[in-house]
Amino acid sequence: MTEETIATAESDLARHAEKMAKKKAARDKIMATKTGEKGLIIVHTGKGKGKSSAAFGMIFRHIAHGKKCAVVQFIKGAMSTGERDMILKHFSDLCDFHTMGEGFTWETQDKARDIEMAQAAWEKAKELIRDPLNSMVLLDEVNIAIRYDYIDLAEVLEFLATEKPPMTHVVLTGRNAKDELIELADLVTEMELVKHPFRSGIKAQIGVEY
Amino acid sequence: MTEETIATAESDLARHAEKMAKKKAARDKIMATKTGEKGLIIVHTGKGKGKSSAAFGMIFRHIAHGKKCAVVQFIKGAMSTGERDMILKHFSDLCDFHTMGEGFTWETQDKARDIEMAQAAWEKAKELIRDPLNSMVLLDEVNIAIRYDYIDLAEVLEFLATEKPPMTHVVLTGRNAKDELIELADLVTEMELVKHPFRSGIKAQIGVEY
Repeated sequence: MTEETIATAESDLARHAEKMAKKKAARDKIMATKTGEKGLIIVHTGKGKGKSSAAFGMIFRHIAHGKKCAVVQFIKGAMSTGERDMILKHFSDLCDFHTMGEGFTWETQDKARDIEMAQAAWEKAKELIRDPLNSMVLLDEVNIAIRYDYIDLAEVLEFLATEKPPMTHVVLTGRNAKDELIELADLVTEMELVKHPFRSGIKAQIGVEY
Repeated sequence: MTEETIATAESDLARHAEKMAKKKAARDKIMATKTGEKGLIIVHTGKGKGKSSAAFGMIFRHIAHGKKCAVVQFIKGAMSTGERDMILKHFSDLCDFHTMGEGFTWETQDKARDIEMAQAAWEKAKELIRDPLNSMVLLDEVNIAIRYDYIDLAEVLEFLATEKPPMTHVVLTGRNAKDELIELADLVTEMELVKHPFRSGIKAQIGVEY
């Protein structure tokens, strides 16, 4: 390098440091205004992958921080048993885990039984949310049970709005989240499918889908 | 209930069972065509939450199945330490974990050092991907390092296309994934931000964001 290129590179780096210092100051200022804490209603929806896994990520963070939490799985057949197996094996002291559903409704073909299971899961969910020891309760695939009218949307909304303890986080996952639920929620993420290997004939694989 | 309403309800349930049996047959037929297996290039991008957590979900599935995997975190300051702490504490025998970056670039304000760290992380990533014992390698927040040109996009694409063992899954997370990477990938999910509590003055909370 000539002395001139070295000088240019150094001045580039100095400009970068200055720009980033400004960015940091702006960010710190914004973050300083965010001081509130509350139990959030969190919704993961959309056709993409990761709705349940991202929710389990928060459950794992709770466990890592030694905080109590609970999971109700409304649809057993939702394939990803890895997180469940790990929680049951290693962390059942911190995380109360219930798998209530029998599978997707087209697998069971018994609507009366599906409704009964979904109702039982919802009763368990209410009990876990009311328990002030639980810092987070995950209702995995509950949106599907709501969509099929196996549990009543209005009742879910009413319960979350009036009976959820103020500091408890409740996470609701599944495709086709109802607009009214999105309206009530504090944090909503839509997992959008951009590209999927099923289209090229690749099957569900161990460690990826389950 | 009158006998007539009972008869109507029973016929409704029978219709439901028939409809779901057809749905199951159609689904089973589609699934039967999906027989391939291959190591996937998986991208999680978008402004929403859950990109890293959904990736860690797959890492946890690997661990739950007793399969070897590895993580390289390109940006240390990406907040969610729960998953990392859990892996380091409980599963370091199955999952090789490296935190290489020092933080977001506007936190460090030292471009030369950031480039050096990103390059070192990329060298480690290549080594882990080349190791045929690893079934999945997660490059967490690598898209940010690529976006800032701290590592060369063309080199990443070339490496993935030519040197990744055929059965190894590689997961790349972070906002602003490059179009060329999305093009190369097998499975792409965009996490879209629909609603965020920061907008109502709620700060990042333990067990949710970190």
